[in-house]
Amino acid sequence: MSNPFFINSGPFKISEILETLKIESEFDENRIVIDIKDLYNAKKDCITFFHLKKYNEIVKKTEASYCITTKNLKDYLPKNCTAIIVENVLIATSIVTQKFYPNSIEDEYDRTAININDTSFKDIVNAGKNVLVGNNVKIGKNCLIGHNSIIERNVQIGNNCKIGSNTILRNSVIKDNVTILDNCVIGKKGFGFFPSQSKNLRYPHKGIVIINENSEIGCGSTIDRGSLSNTEIGKNTFLDNQIHIAHNVKIGENTILAGQVGIAGSTIIGNNVKIGGQAGISGHLRIGNNVEIGGGSGVIKDIPDNAKVMGYPAKSIREFLKDNR
Amino acid sequence: MSNPFFINSGPFKISEILETLKIESEFDENRIVIDIKDLYNAKKDCITFFHLKKYNEIVKKTEASYCITTKNLKDYLPKNCTAIIVENVLIATSIVTQKFYPNSIEDEYDRTAININDTSFKDIVNAGKNVLVGNNVKIGKNCLIGHNSIIERNVQIGNNCKIGSNTILRNSVIKDNVTILDNCVIGKKGFGFFPSQSKNLRYPHKGIVIINENSEIGCGSTIDRGSLSNTEIGKNTFLDNQIHIAHNVKIGENTILAGQVGIAGSTIIGNNVKIGGQAGISGHLRIGNNVEIGGGSGVIKDIPDNAKVMGYPAKSIREFLKDNR
Amino acid sequence: MSNPFFINSGPFKISEILETLKIESEFDENRIVIDIKDLYNAKKDCITFFHLKKYNEIVKKTEASYCITTKNLKDYLPKNCTAIIVENVLIATSIVTQKFYPNSIEDEYDRTAININDTSFKDIVNAGKNVLVGNNVKIGKNCLIGHNSIIERNVQIGNNCKIGSNTILRNSVIKDNVTILDNCVIGKKGFGFFPSQSKNLRYPHKGIVIINENSEIGCGSTIDRGSLSNTEIGKNTFLDNQIHIAHNVKIGENTILAGQVGIAGSTIIGNNVKIGGQAGISGHLRIGNNVEIGGGSGVIKDIPDNAKVMGYPAKSIREFLKDNR
Repeated sequence: MSNPFFINSGPFKISEILETLKIESEFDENRIVIDIKDLYNAKKDCITFFHLKKYNEIVKKTEASYCITTKNLKDYLPKNCTAIIVENVLIATSIVTQKFYPNSIEDEYDRTAININDTSFKDIVNAGKNVLVGNNVKIGKNCLIGHNSIIERNVQIGNNCKIGSNTILRNSVIKDNVTILDNCVIGKKGFGFFPSQSKNLRYPHKGIVIINENSEIGCGSTIDRGSLSNTEIGKNTFLDNQIHIAHNVKIGENTILAGQVGIAGSTIIGNNVKIGGQAGISGHLRIGNNVEIGGGSGVIKDIPDNAKVMGYPAKSIREFLKDNR
Repeated sequence: MSNPFFINSGPFKISEILETLKIESEFDENRIVIDIKDLYNAKKDCITFFHLKKYNEIVKKTEASYCITTKNLKDYLPKNCTAIIVENVLIATSIVTQKFYPNSIEDEYDRTAININDTSFKDIVNAGKNVLVGNNVKIGKNCLIGHNSIIERNVQIGNNCKIGSNTILRNSVIKDNVTILDNCVIGKKGFGFFPSQSKNLRYPHKGIVIINENSEIGCGSTIDRGSLSNTEIGKNTFLDNQIHIAHNVKIGENTILAGQVGIAGSTIIGNNVKIGGQAGISGHLRIGNNVEIGGGSGVIKDIPDNAKVMGYPAKSIREFLKDNR
Repeated sequence: MSNPFFINSGPFKISEILETLKIESEFDENRIVIDIKDLYNAKKDCITFFHLKKYNEIVKKTEASYCITTKNLKDYLPKNCTAIIVENVLIATSIVTQKFYPNSIEDEYDRTAININDTSFKDIVNAGKNVLVGNNVKIGKNCLIGHNSIIERNVQIGNNCKIGSNTILRNSVIKDNVTILDNCVIGKKGFGFFPSQSKNLRYPHKGIVIINENSEIGCGSTIDRGSLSNTEIGKNTFLDNQIHIAHNVKIGENTILAGQVGIAGSTIIGNNVKIGGQAGISGHLRIGNNVEIGGGSGVIKDIPDNAKVMGYPAKSIREFLKDNR
């Protein structure tokens, strides 16, 4: 899916990008770079980044033409991909992303939003009182939007969707038959920045939130949009109340998350997974298909398909119950 | 308390109910069934359900005339109660509940809600800006309702209540002297459905939320209404911020829940209980009177009266502290 | 910082205060008491309170002229400070605070709030739709306030601040360059009261919330104001979504709290601290500088500078990982 919301200011010559990074060029200065993407999604003529050795299997297959990385990691790159060596990969990636997507850093309230009754949606959407809609919004047939909700700019809503009251959407694609209950915030920038003593440096969030068909999001939940990749909720996946989904998380289909669950950034969760209330999952993990995670668990490592785990740190539920007899 | 909000479409002949369940009738087809209720509340001529062996003491005393159950469990039923044998008790119960209460499945935003200044409450309620009120609402004397709050249809508020701003109430009975702070959602449908690969099947929530006298609910809390029984908060019970109370939970009097606590469905909590911050309690448990549960605990089994517990899984606090010296 | 919001009804003669407490006076009845403050902040002619032996080092240095305490603790007081002996220190403190600050107990919605377009802020603040502003509010240059947000009375906002949508502020001082995202409630009364069988007794919250320069508060967070002292977030400290900060908490500079963290009352957290998602910290603790607390941890004792901890209860991260290999 190409990015429907954040407009690419590129392409740029690689020499321009290197100049932004204050790196002296050693290679063909006129080659064009069309976009910045993560390792999975980068194509020829894109620039990507590689900062953790654990992604070494993925980097081998990247189609990117350039990769921001470190001296120590550069030898993992495939031949098609030229290394751009920096001290701090994430800061350099942030600077380049900002060059391509200057509007993806801050979430100022949407000044384009106006009352839905003053828009062409008036006749096709069944909306409550005081509903606001911003620019670049599409809404399908047979949708409900509750009182005081704000559909900020850059939102696509499919058919037969039900949005509750006091809910805020931005930078999101909502597919058909999705229900989002009251008091949610979907699509805000993720919690990503580089700590700095005087003033932390926020990095851009040009990813979006995608919520697929038939899913339901409970009251008071927050789903942050991705930084370079998207945050995505699979089909027919149900989230209970007060859940927090961080940036870049991907959750599969037919998955169930009970109340107050939290998923940290960039974690990938499979299909048919059940996660009990208040469980937390650390960032950058992979949770397989058909996994069951007990309520209150703290998951700090990958979980293979079909495993049932519980505890903090989470272990096999059999072991957990045995240890706590 | 008879259900003040969800209108019973019955009575039905038992033969009609069996037909809905696609069960061939073996008994008097013309007998009338007046309502569907849980084991505790079902009276003569009601239908109830029994799906977990742990409720075997309760089922013995049920006054219901019919009970949806399984082959394995049917022998626990008392003589007055005819078993209706099904494969999956909860799905069958859902189907029958939907027959009696067809409007209890989805929480669409309340289209009957209008500005309080356009209602007769204008002169008796001290309301902020942009307050909405739906049909079938009662509000007592000397109440305050903060800005942007929505009192949806099917709400009764007693005297001297204080409702904060940005709060949503529906399908709830709020007794005298209750305080509900900002950004809460009280009375939405619970997180109850039957997982199914293509499209989960939501079951009806015809229960309500009851908040008894002198209680207080903190900011950003969610209290879901019950499925067949009610969700109830006892007198003079105080909840801190960001608490989640699931469907069918019952909390006693003079109980205190600190911030971010979560209580899973159908759990019953006694009087004079103290629950520390971020503690979680699994579903279908019984927590006695005068219990103290330490902050961060994960309770996964019943707790007797007067116990002090802590840990995950929660155990006696003495043992917890000894084990973690 | 003197209290900018809650107006002191004093001074009172000490005899008047003793009468309120129903204590027979044994000392100079005409001496004047100008204010009630905590042990740190009380000056000459103030009254303070001392209820936990763990504060014995602090009580030695208090400048207060009077101190509400118990028979057992009175010998810790310095010579300049006269003990007022009571059965229950917190109840007596509550009664005296209420005498000085009668308006600090309940958070009724702000009836002075009106649409920002009907105020003089219209031309200097970039505000969304339906923004309300109460009495005694100051807003600096170049600020944004999102749709439906409510700046209740007693708020000071510095320059270049960004307030999201659906957010409520009261009794708070927001310094320059602060970002507060959507659906937050900042400055409500804390969860402080004396349990009582028929009707809990709320104690006053005359403290405020201070959020210092360059900080950011995530969506759906709640920060309660202090009871006698203030709740304070240091400079350049970033909070993720759905965080709860209880009354009297003080967080240092350059500190990072990930999603769903909860900090119980009166805990003090240092500078450059990192707290992982869903971690909880008990009340009345001291967390040093440069501490790292792993996600999901439950901290129940003080943590010295530079420590890295994880687990429930939290211990050294090395030990935690070893124990859970």
